[in-house]
Amino acid sequence: MAEIRGLFISFEGGEGAGKSTQIRHLADKLTRRGFDVLVTREPGGSAGAEAVRHVLLSGAVEGFGTGMEALLFAAARNDHVREVIRPALERGAVVLCDRFMDSSRVYQGGSGDLSPDFLTRLERVAIDDTPPDLTIILDIPAAAGLARARQRAEATGTGGEPDRYEKENIAVHEARRQGFLDIARREPNRCKVIDATRDVATIANDIMAVVAPRLAGIAPAGGETEGTV
Amino acid sequence: MAEIRGLFISFEGGEGAGKSTQIRHLADKLTRRGFDVLVTREPGGSAGAEAVRHVLLSGAVEGFGTGMEALLFAAARNDHVREVIRPALERGAVVLCDRFMDSSRVYQGGSGDLSPDFLTRLERVAIDDTPPDLTIILDIPAAAGLARARQRAEATGTGGEPDRYEKENIAVHEARRQGFLDIARREPNRCKVIDATRDVATIANDIMAVVAPRLAGIAPAGGETEGTV
Repeated sequence: MAEIRGLFISFEGGEGAGKSTQIRHLADKLTRRGFDVLVTREPGGSAGAEAVRHVLLSGAVEGFGTGMEALLFAAARNDHVREVIRPALERGAVVLCDRFMDSSRVYQGGSGDLSPDFLTRLERVAIDDTPPDLTIILDIPAAAGLARARQRAEATGTGGEPDRYEKENIAVHEARRQGFLDIARREPNRCKVIDATRDVATIANDIMAVVAPRLAGIAPAGGETEGTV
Repeated sequence: MAEIRGLFISFEGGEGAGKSTQIRHLADKLTRRGFDVLVTREPGGSAGAEAVRHVLLSGAVEGFGTGMEALLFAAARNDHVREVIRPALERGAVVLCDRFMDSSRVYQGGSGDLSPDFLTRLERVAIDDTPPDLTIILDIPAAAGLARARQRAEATGTGGEPDRYEKENIAVHEARRQGFLDIARREPNRCKVIDATRDVATIANDIMAVVAPRLAGIAPAGGETEGTV
């Protein structure tokens, strides 16, 4: 494996926490500072992973059990890491990924069907020695996040067809929120929790404050470099 | 996980080594002795695994890289273990499996594309604490095995369409043979190498000789129990 010279940042949090908005803001700021920025997402993010994502979101493998589903997610993630994330890190890019391994821990681990040992082993296979350097957890109470997600769906006219992960109730979402917070408590160096109930600009500033110290040693690739963050 | 009360035997070896013939003979003998016997195979062996097997043998995922392929094999194996092999072992059956984890070690490990660490982790995920108790390696020089496989294909009229794993040349098959022998040297308690160049009855007797001591403690499920082995 070639040397990793970039910075890998994942974004986690429930529905309506504002992950994609904040990723866009951060990508803009970093690009203006001259960094090579790659924005990607899970499940998906590479050709092989998108193929698996399509199968998973269709619900076609639900009949084959949670072990099969977890392994297909791992196959998608491994393809994404090998084909997209690691090549970008090796060339020195800042990679911003919408959901990564912590979503699997919370979504699959929370189901209770799979042993923690199994999930830990599977995570190691999937990420293949490429964990995020930094994970931003956008924290919002489940009820508030779901209300936001619903408003957004109505505004964009996509409210008619919630996918299978958006159909579940507030208690489930609140349990997942606690799952993310538990991970942050166990891995405080990697994970930073940001209060996502506030306005977009305030959250963006908080995110930049935790990202900035990690940029030391990552060379801007070119572009406008006169700006400050 | 419920208690394992049965016996898990895998059969490995190259093309033309006689795995399916010997599995059939052993299954007959054990059934006549009253054991609950389950015969299965990889890749495949369960509904989810057969679905993945179909995708894999079609070559449709070759473009997605060896990591993706290895993970799909692992997904198939994990489904097979959870849905078929472990339930049979838990009820006290003798499970005879045509190919298992050693084929992955030899076929995927031999390609050189994936790190040994990755493959070891993946194996642990796939088999999920259910390794074979005994592995019979049917050993035959590659040239002799391939000649036998060709004769069989011609005799059954299936010679026209070799699948992608049968198209490769003798040197590749011989390297795999050595791969199986290396595994047997490293794990002599689990693996028994049987000379498969001899006649069917002699090989079957040798196999029964290594299986018999492992049957102590496995309760026959009923049926004719007066026979000897």
